[in-house]
Amino acid sequence: MKTFSAPSVDRVSITEYFKDLQDDICQQLETADGMGRFQEDAWERAGGGGGRSRVIIGQHIEKGGVNFSAVHGALPEKIAQALKLDSADFFATGVSIVLHPSNPYTPIIHMNVRYFETDGGHWWFGGGIDLTPHYIFTEDAAFFHQALKTTCDQHHHDHYPTFKAWADKYFYIKHRGETRGIGGIFFDQLAGCEENSKAETFAFVRAVGETFCPTYIPLLHKHKNTPFSEREKNWQYLRRGRYVEFNLVWDKGTKFGLDTDGRTESILMSLPPTANWVYNHHPEPGSPEEQTLKWLSDKGKEWI
Amino acid sequence: MKTFSAPSVDRVSITEYFKDLQDDICQQLETADGMGRFQEDAWERAGGGGGRSRVIIGQHIEKGGVNFSAVHGALPEKIAQALKLDSADFFATGVSIVLHPSNPYTPIIHMNVRYFETDGGHWWFGGGIDLTPHYIFTEDAAFFHQALKTTCDQHHHDHYPTFKAWADKYFYIKHRGETRGIGGIFFDQLAGCEENSKAETFAFVRAVGETFCPTYIPLLHKHKNTPFSEREKNWQYLRRGRYVEFNLVWDKGTKFGLDTDGRTESILMSLPPTANWVYNHHPEPGSPEEQTLKWLSDKGKEWI
Repeated sequence: MKTFSAPSVDRVSITEYFKDLQDDICQQLETADGMGRFQEDAWERAGGGGGRSRVIIGQHIEKGGVNFSAVHGALPEKIAQALKLDSADFFATGVSIVLHPSNPYTPIIHMNVRYFETDGGHWWFGGGIDLTPHYIFTEDAAFFHQALKTTCDQHHHDHYPTFKAWADKYFYIKHRGETRGIGGIFFDQLAGCEENSKAETFAFVRAVGETFCPTYIPLLHKHKNTPFSEREKNWQYLRRGRYVEFNLVWDKGTKFGLDTDGRTESILMSLPPTANWVYNHHPEPGSPEEQTLKWLSDKGKEWI
Repeated sequence: MKTFSAPSVDRVSITEYFKDLQDDICQQLETADGMGRFQEDAWERAGGGGGRSRVIIGQHIEKGGVNFSAVHGALPEKIAQALKLDSADFFATGVSIVLHPSNPYTPIIHMNVRYFETDGGHWWFGGGIDLTPHYIFTEDAAFFHQALKTTCDQHHHDHYPTFKAWADKYFYIKHRGETRGIGGIFFDQLAGCEENSKAETFAFVRAVGETFCPTYIPLLHKHKNTPFSEREKNWQYLRRGRYVEFNLVWDKGTKFGLDTDGRTESILMSLPPTANWVYNHHPEPGSPEEQTLKWLSDKGKEWI
């Protein structure tokens, strides 16, 4: 893993860091996929700023997006109210990733790191990583959560339990009574009062961003060549349907993007290449699909 | 078409009428499909009431749902506020239909008729029919809108222009700048002050419900055997993706259902069997797909 130095915590330095992070992750994912190449669209936002959306269609990553954006402008009043801020100009930058793998035994992954500030002097960081296996393997879940815990523990001993619980609450499909996957960590409005705390918060966010590749790529390699049949592929399509439901009904990030006239194609690159809906589907009793569903109905499960 | 008599306008009579309407439409659709049979799930709602969900998987209807429900209970405060009602017990009954046809040249159809009342003495009817072709044929669009206009004109000369404009506004995918399809009619909170006006409103709602079969079934027969290739099927999957986006992001009916702890499988039976998302897809210049998209970007287009 390339290491980054980012001593400054102004918006320019943070933006540059996120760009580098996008570059690094894209390069590592291309290597891991072995065939697909990212296609980039640079875009500008009418209200201010823009981004670089990158999408890969590969042999192991069926569809994946790694987006960078840095946008600014007037904060819509509705959002200012929701954030309990005075109406002000805002600046937001971040990297957002969703990968839908080809092999149903490989999990879907999502990662996001972001920085937000207003001209009124408010600033914070947010982010998270969560894993959505179509088939849950408890050893993968433990590996994944342990990696996040190790990153968190290096910064604050409260981070993992707090942000793990936050992810359990956030990545929940209420109308299904199911978690989106096995969770991970999620945090928002992470801020402090002193310059020192800003540097420390940024260091934590960088560590989260740099946890992505060494955590996901081994899982991709582990499962990419596992044989599967139509049955597993159909189950994958159904679970992707749930992913769509979460993103369009519950995800605040998607809502924020659509409400601030974000670039629709970049926001919705998180949607899967193909998803199915089968009315009132219930997996066969005793099947691996049923076992996965049972685990998904256990909100707050500890995986380590 | 079977004719119905429904002289009374109390909740029991309205409920019975909607049940009969569901039966009649299901029977006509089975005949039209020629192979599929509706499977029924009778369900009860924990908070009060229940319904009969019916789903068909046929040769021409790839997946279709015709739902009846009659539910009651305490109105969630959030919804009471949105409706500007005092918190009270509510009663709601209706029939909801979405059909996803197999042939990409056959349009998706949606119809809903509903009745709502509170113990506080408020009541109203709502409903609508709208058509979502994957490929727009202007003669079909004219036929469809003319059928709705004929029904409307028999009740009030303002109904068609008012409810057509309402549908254009309602069935709009804001984040795409596209209409969901060619629209139709939509109305809500249609009420009056006298018993006479309630009977007349109910008569209009019945007429809308009975316009469904003679309007959609001819379109199904017209296109069900039109040859198509993978190209048209892929386009259908993309347009179904937009249907999913509308229903999960913008549709107030879906939101109401999920917010009132409605039966998720019945609410989301509107979702297609298969949908695709392709990043930043643009149809070939001069293609029928591009022509359809152009029409869909013309909000408020007159089709008659």
